[in-house]
Amino acid sequence: MSGLSRISLTIEETTLTRFDRWIQDQGFPTRSEAVGNLIRNALVSDDWNSSDKEVAGVITIVYDHHKPAILEKLVKAQHDSGAVVICSQHAHLDHSNCLENIIVKGKVADIRLLHQHIESIKGIKHAVITMTTTGHHL
Amino acid sequence: MSGLSRISLTIEETTLTRFDRWIQDQGFPTRSEAVGNLIRNALVSDDWNSSDKEVAGVITIVYDHHKPAILEKLVKAQHDSGAVVICSQHAHLDHSNCLENIIVKGKVADIRLLHQHIESIKGIKHAVITMTTTGHHL
Amino acid sequence: MSGLSRISLTIEETTLTRFDRWIQDQGFPTRSEAVGNLIRNALVSDDWNSSDKEVAGVITIVYDHHKPAILEKLVKAQHDSGAVVICSQHAHLDHSNCLENIIVKGKVADIRLLHQHIESIKGIKHAVITMTTTGHHL
Amino acid sequence: MSGLSRISLTIEETTLTRFDRWIQDQGFPTRSEAVGNLIRNALVSDDWNSSDKEVAGVITIVYDHHKPAILEKLVKAQHDSGAVVICSQHAHLDHSNCLENIIVKGKVADIRLLHQHIESIKGIKHAVITMTTTGHHL
Repeated sequence: MSGLSRISLTIEETTLTRFDRWIQDQGFPTRSEAVGNLIRNALVSDDWNSSDKEVAGVITIVYDHHKPAILEKLVKAQHDSGAVVICSQHAHLDHSNCLENIIVKGKVADIRLLHQHIESIKGIKHAVITMTTTGHHL
Repeated sequence: MSGLSRISLTIEETTLTRFDRWIQDQGFPTRSEAVGNLIRNALVSDDWNSSDKEVAGVITIVYDHHKPAILEKLVKAQHDSGAVVICSQHAHLDHSNCLENIIVKGKVADIRLLHQHIESIKGIKHAVITMTTTGHHL
Repeated sequence: MSGLSRISLTIEETTLTRFDRWIQDQGFPTRSEAVGNLIRNALVSDDWNSSDKEVAGVITIVYDHHKPAILEKLVKAQHDSGAVVICSQHAHLDHSNCLENIIVKGKVADIRLLHQHIESIKGIKHAVITMTTTGHHL
Repeated sequence: MSGLSRISLTIEETTLTRFDRWIQDQGFPTRSEAVGNLIRNALVSDDWNSSDKEVAGVITIVYDHHKPAILEKLVKAQHDSGAVVICSQHAHLDHSNCLENIIVKGKVADIRLLHQHIESIKGIKHAVITMTTTGHHL
């Protein structure tokens, strides 16, 4: 947790009126919280634009665990990856369908590659990459 | 053009340091311009989340004009649309390939429907919708 | 697991050549797997365009657990939600920063609302919604 | 225009049933057209993932033309760019607001840089980049 800075900005009145309404709709407690959220989102997007930035991410997959050899392939892809897999979580959606979240930390390029490997495994129904941050300096 | 409002915000120091570097990389002349840009982007996204908001947009298509009847189908789709087509622009990319921008104003749902109609026309190589704003109160 | 259908399609030769190279780069074992992946992605996107479709999703958040009352607010937001929270997973990124995945099932509108509530909590550094599927009929 | 290839694929029955309904909703005349569209979208996205691929794009901006010196800055940014600006189109949204489409061809990195330059100009309300294709081999 870092200290706080006070800044002063000039915004068009009409934009500010609409922004204040949006803040209320979204439920942000203050303008500072809302602007801080927009700034952090921009910084996280920016990190993911470089292939060698250190970020955190999640690879979410849905699959039918009855498919032959899918679990072995999933584990192998994770162990072969240049990104560090911190942990994974498995939820049973119904009798056949599983949702798994794989939390990873590492370079953007390595995480993207792991996502691609997993997405191409036979039996994976859906594989999405979630781009977030290690929280450092944010 | 509306008047300007002065607002004061509290941001975490470390976030602000990274934000100031980003502002410089992006080329924004001032913090106010950068934050204003983030706010307006959030408001435009929010408009496009409602199906009945009045917005402006662009439908960009790439196609081979040699394909039979494609021009007639494109014109018909535009005339049948509930959204108002303001104008369109046609660029020749090479001997066969054309890029066309169709500028539209209207309800989000009508613009999305027009995009869908155009995307499904035989011979269209690529059709993308660009979500922007009428500029009102922004 | 459902049965398999055989379909026959006509694709432009040049597109197919590029597609085959892409399939190899991505690592899909067969054309059928690659096309199946594109189709399922389109269907999942389509589900998330309706506010009342039953989907699965993940809300990923990064925050500093030292922030006062943040854990209580997070739990309250989840319990107040119309979407069903299946489970959540907590990873320690460093001394201060936590990454949490909340797996939810429910209507698109309810999941979006929960994401919005969580994003607006003071102390949340980043909150992203991941759109996936229950796997039903896919 | 290239020749056509006939391919044969295996898709899960339940996925195919949902896909056929989606095809009808979207208005694609045939399965081949629908799958061709998904394939081309994937190839275009892939091109935009490399910074040195030759692509076509559109930079769409909304601004108030009363803002001082904005037109000069816009023209200068375009002339300084490494991407080739093919043409631009200007639409009057109302008394103050203009929407302009700038059609560009060139390397992904150059187009992104031009977008960034334009977005940071004081007085630009919204600047979006549209990623499309030169149509070559597609």
